[in-house]
Amino acid sequence: MLIVGAGPAGLTAAIYALRYNMRVGIIAGIPGGLMMEAHKISNWPGEKEIAGYELSQKMKDHAESFGAKFIYELAAGIAKLDNGWQVTTSTGAKYQAPTLLYSLGTEHRHLDIPAEAKFKGKGVSYCATCDAMFYKGKNTGVVGSGNSAMTAALYLAELCPKVYIFNRSNAWKGEVAWQLEVDKRPNIIKVMETNIVDMAGDEHLAGVVLDKEYNGSKEVALEGLFVEIGLLPKTEMFKALGGEVDEWNYIKVGPDMSTNLPGLFAAGDTTNASNRFRQIVTAAAEGSIAADGAFNYFQKHK
Amino acid sequence: MLIVGAGPAGLTAAIYALRYNMRVGIIAGIPGGLMMEAHKISNWPGEKEIAGYELSQKMKDHAESFGAKFIYELAAGIAKLDNGWQVTTSTGAKYQAPTLLYSLGTEHRHLDIPAEAKFKGKGVSYCATCDAMFYKGKNTGVVGSGNSAMTAALYLAELCPKVYIFNRSNAWKGEVAWQLEVDKRPNIIKVMETNIVDMAGDEHLAGVVLDKEYNGSKEVALEGLFVEIGLLPKTEMFKALGGEVDEWNYIKVGPDMSTNLPGLFAAGDTTNASNRFRQIVTAAAEGSIAADGAFNYFQKHK
Repeated sequence: MLIVGAGPAGLTAAIYALRYNMRVGIIAGIPGGLMMEAHKISNWPGEKEIAGYELSQKMKDHAESFGAKFIYELAAGIAKLDNGWQVTTSTGAKYQAPTLLYSLGTEHRHLDIPAEAKFKGKGVSYCATCDAMFYKGKNTGVVGSGNSAMTAALYLAELCPKVYIFNRSNAWKGEVAWQLEVDKRPNIIKVMETNIVDMAGDEHLAGVVLDKEYNGSKEVALEGLFVEIGLLPKTEMFKALGGEVDEWNYIKVGPDMSTNLPGLFAAGDTTNASNRFRQIVTAAAEGSIAADGAFNYFQKHK
Repeated sequence: MLIVGAGPAGLTAAIYALRYNMRVGIIAGIPGGLMMEAHKISNWPGEKEIAGYELSQKMKDHAESFGAKFIYELAAGIAKLDNGWQVTTSTGAKYQAPTLLYSLGTEHRHLDIPAEAKFKGKGVSYCATCDAMFYKGKNTGVVGSGNSAMTAALYLAELCPKVYIFNRSNAWKGEVAWQLEVDKRPNIIKVMETNIVDMAGDEHLAGVVLDKEYNGSKEVALEGLFVEIGLLPKTEMFKALGGEVDEWNYIKVGPDMSTNLPGLFAAGDTTNASNRFRQIVTAAAEGSIAADGAFNYFQKHK
């Protein structure tokens, strides 16, 4: 099995496939995927607190110890063969296998201001479920207008004295039920029709700078900012093959993580599975199911 | 949230719910669930090899460090309240919460011969996906006639010189595709209409004793025996509430792990989710999704 993408989905699929005695090649720039972006992870069961790079390394070592071959190149194209799949990498190298797992994940949509990169992991986060607890008792903010932004604000409101929610428009994209809940929380402060144009702080985030005044000032003090303006699934190469995606560009998978392309499986944040919860543990579970699916497919077609 | 059952589903749900600042009580005899039965676990991502009790302890410590209250009693009954659920334990104590997670898991169906318990974890296993690799290069056997038994035999056939499959009837219950694959493997030896009545070995399993001769002897030498005669989901208390189960008695869940009973969620081996793969990592993922589902439910109904 060839695996494109080495986040928790790809790495877990490798571990499972190797235990089925399949040969496994993993094509990825670096192992870990979005886990590598997490300063601290506190929701991987069994680890109260672990650095993203450390959990990535543990999963990579696990897969490697079972015999996974890591190919540290980026996938540039995928082609269907008569009896399998071929991945061409950015160096022009070609790899072939009867089954393929597509687990390239997503990218966070960014605010596209330089300060965002500076404070990433130092106040700027992209996952309230993962990181909110680190801001207990502190003032925080959320950027966005959809369900992710509103549920992040509700979650933060249980922990933080004040939670600002910055919405660049004057309306909400998410469910009305969430809007009603947000309205009920006196410590959620809605800042509408406002963009964040810069951030303040030395080592760690201390505040955001707005494009217009709020409460008499263009600067709002806060220690955590959750950017919840959407995810971009990396499904271009899958779609180029005729692969089916949903209206948000996520790969449509069946219960065994199969796609509409026979022998091509998908797992992790790039799919529409796991109720779209998109956690490390759900990606890992999807990887295990996909490996089992690929093994069953291979047994029936070899 | 009240959680009944403390396997990986219940423990992960607790971790996630606590991070949503919900209060969590877990009712279970001991933490770990079926993990506690696993001598070694090699498919929990990041841990090349970990004892079942150790992984159980790590997840329990994780949940406890976040504030989970463990109630070391067995659930004896569940009742619907006007605005939530009540669990009565075997001591008669009563616990109440707006949401309930039902994660009682399954029991393995047993051969019901005394030797089986003696060699459990010492040659007798209930999960080929988990344990087959420990028997690489050794002769093994499988008991059963369904898909689990046949896929276990196929998997073992990639690793072991000889794999006996003991079927008490003269037919197979599983898919024809698997039967055809089993037929293609010269190292899978079908022993039909035969029961295992005893086992041989000192510290570790060394062979099985049959109720009739195979190849001139009632004893067959092997070092691993995989008992794949089915699972029994512990869904009695759920069904007593009018909960919907599928034809095999597993709880029917929606994408957010909700059941047909509002506010009652289910996760882990006891459900029909995760393509019925039923691994530690899939149970954990279902637990995380259920906690998120319960949080959303609670937010909308409080």
